[in-house]
Amino acid sequence: MASSADGRDSSDAVEPGRMKFSSGYCRTCRLEVESTTISVVHVVGTSLKADLNRSAPPSSKFFSVKCTAGVQYRINPPPQETTDLSHIPLNGNSVLLISMGSASQHENDNKLSVQYYGENKEVLGKAVLHLTAVEISLDVDADRDGVVEKNNTNKGSWKWGPNGHGAILLVNCDSERTYWKKPDSEQNHISKVSDLKDMSLMVLRTRGPPKLPEGYKLTMHISQGHAESVRVFRSKGKTTNAVSERVYDYFVRDYPLVLSAKFLSREVPYLGGEAEMNFYVEGLRFSDKDFDGLISINLSLLEPISPGLPETPIFTDTAVFRVAPWIMTPNTLEPEEVFVCSTKDNYQFLKGMKNLVARSGYKLKICHEYVNRGDRWMQDELEFGYIDSPHHIFPVVLDSPRDGKMQDFPYHELLGPDFGYVTRVAHRRDVSSLDSFGNLEVSPPVTVNGKNYPLGRIIIGVAFPTATKGRNMTQVVQDFLWAQKVQEPVALFSDWLLVGHVDEFMTFVPAADRKGFRLLLASPDAGYKLFRGLKNNGHGQAKLFEGLKDEKPKTVDELLSDTSLEAENNYVQSCIDWNRDVLKRELGLDDEDIIDLPILFKLVVEKQDRTQFRAVAYYPDMVNMIVLGKNLGIPKPFGPKVNGRCALEAEMCSLMEGLGLNCTFIDDFAAYHKLLGEVHCGSNVRRKPFDFKWWNLEM
Amino acid sequence: MASSADGRDSSDAVEPGRMKFSSGYCRTCRLEVESTTISVVHVVGTSLKADLNRSAPPSSKFFSVKCTAGVQYRINPPPQETTDLSHIPLNGNSVLLISMGSASQHENDNKLSVQYYGENKEVLGKAVLHLTAVEISLDVDADRDGVVEKNNTNKGSWKWGPNGHGAILLVNCDSERTYWKKPDSEQNHISKVSDLKDMSLMVLRTRGPPKLPEGYKLTMHISQGHAESVRVFRSKGKTTNAVSERVYDYFVRDYPLVLSAKFLSREVPYLGGEAEMNFYVEGLRFSDKDFDGLISINLSLLEPISPGLPETPIFTDTAVFRVAPWIMTPNTLEPEEVFVCSTKDNYQFLKGMKNLVARSGYKLKICHEYVNRGDRWMQDELEFGYIDSPHHIFPVVLDSPRDGKMQDFPYHELLGPDFGYVTRVAHRRDVSSLDSFGNLEVSPPVTVNGKNYPLGRIIIGVAFPTATKGRNMTQVVQDFLWAQKVQEPVALFSDWLLVGHVDEFMTFVPAADRKGFRLLLASPDAGYKLFRGLKNNGHGQAKLFEGLKDEKPKTVDELLSDTSLEAENNYVQSCIDWNRDVLKRELGLDDEDIIDLPILFKLVVEKQDRTQFRAVAYYPDMVNMIVLGKNLGIPKPFGPKVNGRCALEAEMCSLMEGLGLNCTFIDDFAAYHKLLGEVHCGSNVRRKPFDFKWWNLEM
Repeated sequence: MASSADGRDSSDAVEPGRMKFSSGYCRTCRLEVESTTISVVHVVGTSLKADLNRSAPPSSKFFSVKCTAGVQYRINPPPQETTDLSHIPLNGNSVLLISMGSASQHENDNKLSVQYYGENKEVLGKAVLHLTAVEISLDVDADRDGVVEKNNTNKGSWKWGPNGHGAILLVNCDSERTYWKKPDSEQNHISKVSDLKDMSLMVLRTRGPPKLPEGYKLTMHISQGHAESVRVFRSKGKTTNAVSERVYDYFVRDYPLVLSAKFLSREVPYLGGEAEMNFYVEGLRFSDKDFDGLISINLSLLEPISPGLPETPIFTDTAVFRVAPWIMTPNTLEPEEVFVCSTKDNYQFLKGMKNLVARSGYKLKICHEYVNRGDRWMQDELEFGYIDSPHHIFPVVLDSPRDGKMQDFPYHELLGPDFGYVTRVAHRRDVSSLDSFGNLEVSPPVTVNGKNYPLGRIIIGVAFPTATKGRNMTQVVQDFLWAQKVQEPVALFSDWLLVGHVDEFMTFVPAADRKGFRLLLASPDAGYKLFRGLKNNGHGQAKLFEGLKDEKPKTVDELLSDTSLEAENNYVQSCIDWNRDVLKRELGLDDEDIIDLPILFKLVVEKQDRTQFRAVAYYPDMVNMIVLGKNLGIPKPFGPKVNGRCALEAEMCSLMEGLGLNCTFIDDFAAYHKLLGEVHCGSNVRRKPFDFKWWNLEM
Repeated sequence: MASSADGRDSSDAVEPGRMKFSSGYCRTCRLEVESTTISVVHVVGTSLKADLNRSAPPSSKFFSVKCTAGVQYRINPPPQETTDLSHIPLNGNSVLLISMGSASQHENDNKLSVQYYGENKEVLGKAVLHLTAVEISLDVDADRDGVVEKNNTNKGSWKWGPNGHGAILLVNCDSERTYWKKPDSEQNHISKVSDLKDMSLMVLRTRGPPKLPEGYKLTMHISQGHAESVRVFRSKGKTTNAVSERVYDYFVRDYPLVLSAKFLSREVPYLGGEAEMNFYVEGLRFSDKDFDGLISINLSLLEPISPGLPETPIFTDTAVFRVAPWIMTPNTLEPEEVFVCSTKDNYQFLKGMKNLVARSGYKLKICHEYVNRGDRWMQDELEFGYIDSPHHIFPVVLDSPRDGKMQDFPYHELLGPDFGYVTRVAHRRDVSSLDSFGNLEVSPPVTVNGKNYPLGRIIIGVAFPTATKGRNMTQVVQDFLWAQKVQEPVALFSDWLLVGHVDEFMTFVPAADRKGFRLLLASPDAGYKLFRGLKNNGHGQAKLFEGLKDEKPKTVDELLSDTSLEAENNYVQSCIDWNRDVLKRELGLDDEDIIDLPILFKLVVEKQDRTQFRAVAYYPDMVNMIVLGKNLGIPKPFGPKVNGRCALEAEMCSLMEGLGLNCTFIDDFAAYHKLLGEVHCGSNVRRKPFDFKWWNLEM
């Protein structure tokens, strides 16, 4: 049912000296000779087509047409220039095309008549059409400038890109109420007038007589397929001629529900004269596997027939919206708030983080023990993102199906006014460690073989597709991520890790040169190279893990003589190399865009399947860092000391210094590292959104 | 995860005199100095990349490279032309790109070594890489000529159009077995070897040493998302070098199942030397709302690590298929078989149909009473279509969720070898009269505002979208039809009819001129015009329904004096006009492409909702005809006789004669018309498929 409503009339030859038809909707209308007069409502911008033969009395041979000043008509096929217009020969396929250029002041204020004549030009009958013209336009912000323009020719379709068009809808997933809260999209009324700013304004503009002729009415309607995705409210308040001004009334009762899953179609009042009526459109769900994000809202003018018969729509105007995608924010964007948990045992870590965040000048939000119930993995329970439109933007937290002890935090603590919430529900049995959002990251903007990803690409970790058994990110979350479209995901192999998160072997840091960032990768090869260099330079007796309670120090010599550990790290390197190749290909990176960090792993046997080995960090995994602008919070590695300085810290600082980044090493050994996580796993950052607007993407 | 695997190497400068790398997959590989030699399997067409610094012993300053004849390498950044190649300075980011041009005869038959030197060119160590090259290609008929070509560069993607590419898969919805039958797609084994012709051939071509090195293996795999849509079988039979020849073995046990919903990944044997292994790919479901019809099948080479660790895929080849859509056949295609029911009371109709079909030279198939159990509406229970691929084509019946007493006919009588079956299951409460397939038609090929529909457009009838209550075609069937994509549906308004089928007011007939067809529309206006003409010519006393048992004849004068009937027909005309406007717009028709047939309707009150009126034909509805080439089987209208000839028949003949079509009037009055159906409702036609191939559509 797509295809432009071109009506084909525009391609017809135009009769000279009469009228040019707009390429609008063309409707067949009836003429009748024997009946009393027929009244017709005409929508400006469309045309009426009357078959002259249908209404011609038997043995009619000629006809003539008369009309009032507001009416224009054209005869098709056009009469010869020499034809006597008072007796035009009736052709087997003569039709009359009728239109009006402006709205009527009063009902039936225009008319057109056709008189039929016989062989000898005797009058056989006359058909009279009384005409009432109205202007109707269902308007949205199709040019995406925050203003609802009048009758944009592109409002009925949606196109990506800076030269694109089509209105934008937010999922109303925040909660105006701060107590008894739930996402506004889950209730079918407006709880506070402030909720209107999360919705897209839609304006019904009409012009015509004070009342529509008896029985005519306006109906707004959506299809069954869109019913679960959208809701429309109406403003009962005063009408205004201001094009863009949003005038809110004070009472929610002034904004009745018009359309919803229960009401796919509803009459809306015709106000008469020149009028505007404001509607507020609310998105209810994000794009997903079974929803492409596009929603049409229709406004029809219905013509009455007679009681018991359905009214006929004689004109339909359609506005198309796309639901804004959920967008993730890479490490290269400026932080706004840093989140960590406070637990009984993480004082040391918390102190380090407080200092770092304070020094960097950002806000630190602490999730206290009565909320986190001992669950410290702030990275894993949620992912911060945002939704954006020309009229409004706000952060949205994606709640992981992980649902650890901290599970209530996103809903209870984050959801609120202008802070949205979305989740995907999975069966408990389908959820694995790979569903924690340490396994969900996003790259900075990249260009890959000429294709731009100005919002970067989402990165997730999965099992090898070739694996007959293996853990995976649950399908409902993957479907959601893929359906957002604007940060096309890349799947890496992370199942080789015991915990299985991509943040255990990779991160991105900002850089002034090259592509604006570097990819940091954990590298056992770089680790061995560093330790061999230490040994060669006479530091074979320097000790790892020195000064740590409950931890046996290990010399560099001991480390290097462990051939089993070396074999395990060769395996880990091959897993990371596999991911390195994928990242280079999918993000368009060169080797020079990648920095290898000296990090060793070891393999441990799986508890569940004791024939399966998986990797954990051997010492604190420095790649698992928090990136706050130019300041990096890095797990303190407790490496061997050379001249009183940790050789691993020194190497790390030297690698990062070249990029103008400052390293702060945070002791997470007892409270995080020993529990198989590090600084990144234990923190989260809400960042500023991109300047780039997602609808300007070329898809 | 799309994006070409361009590897970026192709854009690097090529070192003169050495080698040019193909733009294939590039894999990081390890060099090690201190270990024993490393063996690597290399896939021809890809390249290996070794970081020279990673393996360099501490304080290495120079290196040199040696290799056997089969190996090519390139150093990056390239050494100066003046460099002494036996002592190349080791750069901070030196990498070695390695490839082989052809498959190995034996395991480890090639090698490459890198020697490292210190400041004074003293040897510090040597890394040796033993190489085994294999050629691997998972091949399909990506150029759609019926032959599986070797390693088509486009096999991993799918593009519409005559210049497009990508292989095609049939849903294996026929049944090789003729008793105990069910669609072959519903069983996970091959019941007869003849079933292979319904599947797409896929060939795994390999070349290399007699065996893969210890622990390496080939794995074929699909993603979870495609698991419900495809199954792969393998031929255990003899291998062949013939490129396209299909050699079938005689026993189904020679075709074991490889991949299915239960087995997403499975090892496949490596045969050694130069070998081909045949696979047979079977589609299991048609495109639908949640399935875009695309399926990827992957073949990976896995590298062993050590027991307990998953093998790493070091090369993956992918073939993409699109499931062939279900395609409907318009009236302009040549019939193959005509289907009607035999009932206790339809002897008269059956005789007429038999004569017509015999005269037209087609086969008549009669569905007998023990199957139809009195249900005579052959049009409504099913729709004939077909599926097409370069290797095979067969008819497929779409079984309506209507499920009248004839419900077993499509499955029990039609499903069979090379006769497929598909249905969509709907809740009983969601099924209405609009789900009968008299409400599902298809136009001949059309062009609309420059857009070609060479397979025509599907036409269905629905309620007005503005209606707050109304019947509709059930969503699952609509979703299925829209998802087929190649005959983009047009929705008409048919809910104004009591039975509610589009075939009650429209049909298409072939024509030699203009667009190759005419749209015939029922037209009360044309009916009234004809009757008024009769009256004016002195035939006001001529009688409708004359000679019919149990039917009171009615004179033309009586008919014309019934003002209530006239008002009802004005309403009907407005409903048909609404559809006429939509059809003109969506099929790109001119008024000259449409012929109005003189047919009157009357309104009757709905049984369920006694405030609701809907239309039925007043006399046999001539537009509800069967079209068999140039012969039309038309409901005998029993109109008023003029000079012994029915005026309605005469008008019909005169309108059709101009198109070179012959009218045969079939008496369906008692057995069909009185039960609210006509000739078309009571028959069905299986037609020849289009010559046009659906994959040549430009989408």
